Amino acid sequence: MKPAIILVRPQLSENIGTAARAMLNNDLTDLRLVAPKPDWLSDRAIAAASGADRVVLGAKVFDTVAAAVADLQRVWATTARNRFMVKPVDTPRTAAAAMRALAADGQHFGVMFGPERTGLENDDIVHADTVVTVPLNPDYSSLNLAQCVLLVAYEWYQTAGPELPERHMTKGAEPPASKEKLQTFFDHLERELDECGFLRIADKRPVMVRNIRNLFQRAHLTGQEVQTLHGIVHELVTYRHRKGRQE
Amino acid sequence: MKPAIILVRPQLSENIGTAARAMLNNDLTDLRLVAPKPDWLSDRAIAAASGADRVVLGAKVFDTVAAAVADLQRVWATTARNRFMVKPVDTPRTAAAAMRALAADGQHFGVMFGPERTGLENDDIVHADTVVTVPLNPDYSSLNLAQCVLLVAYEWYQTAGPELPERHMTKGAEPPASKEKLQTFFDHLERELDECGFLRIADKRPVMVRNIRNLFQRAHLTGQEVQTLHGIVHELVTYRHRKGRQE
Repeated sequence: MKPAIILVRPQLSENIGTAARAMLNNDLTDLRLVAPKPDWLSDRAIAAASGADRVVLGAKVFDTVAAAVADLQRVWATTARNRFMVKPVDTPRTAAAAMRALAADGQHFGVMFGPERTGLENDDIVHADTVVTVPLNPDYSSLNLAQCVLLVAYEWYQTAGPELPERHMTKGAEPPASKEKLQTFFDHLERELDECGFLRIADKRPVMVRNIRNLFQRAHLTGQEVQTLHGIVHELVTYRHRKGRQE
Repeated sequence: MKPAIILVRPQLSENIGTAARAMLNNDLTDLRLVAPKPDWLSDRAIAAASGADRVVLGAKVFDTVAAAVADLQRVWATTARNRFMVKPVDTPRTAAAAMRALAADGQHFGVMFGPERTGLENDDIVHADTVVTVPLNPDYSSLNLAQCVLLVAYEWYQTAGPELPERHMTKGAEPPASKEKLQTFFDHLERELDECGFLRIADKRPVMVRNIRNLFQRAHLTGQEVQTLHGIVHELVTYRHRKGRQE
């Protein structure tokens, strides 16, 4: 049980292709089109699908929204703005959690998306139980069709996986060093490693340098720790020189 | 404190525009470009930005990744696949949670995105502390540049808002009715309401029908409840008829 994606009166066949791509990215394949343009199944739709063409080719076409949702038990309608209808409102994330519960219960469900410029009409939305609105910057909230499909499908797919691992951060009293300070240390260290011959095998040098840099990047060094490392390298080098003079 | 978005060697200027759009959707404006094509600031970039042109026009251009991240204290690198480097890996969601903690601590941070076809090279990734990979269908995980920016920026923005409200679902023993059954009831009810004159004012009919349908859609009716409603309408109508005959 996975959500059907219902594109209502899509205007551009490319957008059917890019929406199909966003669906397959999230393992969805039930694409339904309501009253698309007669030439919707164009080369442009297939090209835009870019490998997700089986989703486009498998799309079911309906004359009306009512027909497209007839077999579904729960329907969401995406809207960018408040339509002043008395409907519950979900975010993509709360909708995804609700969908997962429906799927576990063996129910059929789907999400409707409106035409590119105008969005769903109120007479489309009336076929839905619930509205879904993406929380975005209120001063710039327009998404293209495929991006809206992507966010809804992505939130669905995220509920499918195992619990997201917690990232554990180590954090000392000192703030982390800037990348500039770290680069200055890499320059210092690599200059000395070239000098002493540690990096003498030209073939291996790039990989060795990368591994050394990765090791220090991973350590989330503080500014003070970078200073300490400068000091360590300096002392190792001058000890070698001092020792050289003694011999 | 918000994440900088760093596009490394972007190939198509349209993608700079659509990435800018995805940024502004999520209230981000610090766009950095590393070694873009000489003609990157094209009409196509501005047209693709579609209202987010101030983000494109404000982009800072750098010759190297090192220069682009010099002032940052924490850098994520987006990759679609395992690079066999010893780096911690975040999802966009765990990265967003970590970024929110850094922002609260007054730190500067950003996320790097690679060229459209090839992604970041290992020598770019070495400038990052952490890798971020979007959990997607492993059989079809390619995202375009703007979509990848969108998902990372969207997850950041979602951490900014208030706690997502829990959706409370009522659920009886019976499964919800299919939309087809509900439509059959609407047809029945509206036929009778036309007949009895309830919907006689033609101007108001569409809004009244819509309000009535919304009311029943919102109720998450079971199949049994729809049958009950059919019975209620039938009885009301035949009572009127029966009463009419008696008078």
